[in-house]
Amino acid sequence: MQQNLTDTLTLLSHTPAALDALLRELPETWTLRNEGEGTWSVFDVVGHLINADRTNWLPRLKLILEFGESRPFEPFQRRAHVRTNQGKPLGELLDEFARVRRDSVEEVRGLNLRPEDFARRGQHPALGVATLSELLAAWAAHDLTHLHQISRIMAHQYQDAVGPWKAYLGVMHCAGHGAS
Amino acid sequence: MQQNLTDTLTLLSHTPAALDALLRELPETWTLRNEGEGTWSVFDVVGHLINADRTNWLPRLKLILEFGESRPFEPFQRRAHVRTNQGKPLGELLDEFARVRRDSVEEVRGLNLRPEDFARRGQHPALGVATLSELLAAWAAHDLTHLHQISRIMAHQYQDAVGPWKAYLGVMHCAGHGAS
Repeated sequence: MQQNLTDTLTLLSHTPAALDALLRELPETWTLRNEGEGTWSVFDVVGHLINADRTNWLPRLKLILEFGESRPFEPFQRRAHVRTNQGKPLGELLDEFARVRRDSVEEVRGLNLRPEDFARRGQHPALGVATLSELLAAWAAHDLTHLHQISRIMAHQYQDAVGPWKAYLGVMHCAGHGAS
Repeated sequence: MQQNLTDTLTLLSHTPAALDALLRELPETWTLRNEGEGTWSVFDVVGHLINADRTNWLPRLKLILEFGESRPFEPFQRRAHVRTNQGKPLGELLDEFARVRRDSVEEVRGLNLRPEDFARRGQHPALGVATLSELLAAWAAHDLTHLHQISRIMAHQYQDAVGPWKAYLGVMHCAGHGAS
């Protein structure tokens, strides 16, 4: 299936409210614990999503429109958010994500992308040539990979508590698949 | 970590609003497609969650309190919802899930479970002996395993559209881990 701009932007605009409904005022058991040393908590993931909208997806999209393949994307600093957000309440991050994402979606809508723009190509520093359509699809799928990760981090906290049911709960057997 | 009733019930009470914010009025690309023959769409998963509250978790919890290990749980009909929900709009299922879950959580609260109740034991038809605490933990983790599944089903629709980014998107490499 091809990327469809309406499908992509609708999904992108739903994510902040979904995370808000799931996470706001949830006990810290679910939001501040991680899956072991060197892994992220749910709090960290929300910080990463804010940072990715600010410094990755939209700037790269604009770089493709302006420079095409002639100027590679800046490498994305995947852990930049960790120091910035230390000590903030999760509610503040959820508010920030809602604002940043609303601005991102509005800005993409304001670009009035035409069908021919979707084939425009950029240069990813590690992945090589990628199209604007692939970038938009990856932006939406990036939300989903982190929703997938969030559900896994939360389930991890109950891995012993569920006793024999662990065998039936797929999320308990998800190994993280590298990036998330 | 042990199951904690407040943590469990707070999570259980957040899930319907989270799914509502994510899924209501989302294009059918995301909600009606599945991961291939014999797999579930997001619509199917929401139907399953309603059915599980109605016929599985709460009835089993009450069975433990009333009969202990002397009466095994009824086997859970995992696909019972498929025929019942055919043709309904997703919004109707989301409303139904919100109602059913609110009733479930209220009913559990109304039981005024005491710490000693958590160790009470029931008999699962396939998994053997399980405690009431394990059942509560599994109920919450069951929401998470299906949130994990929902994010994976949705991401699957863009598996080709993301082009080279597929390598970085963990959710695209999740094999489903059996049950979900």
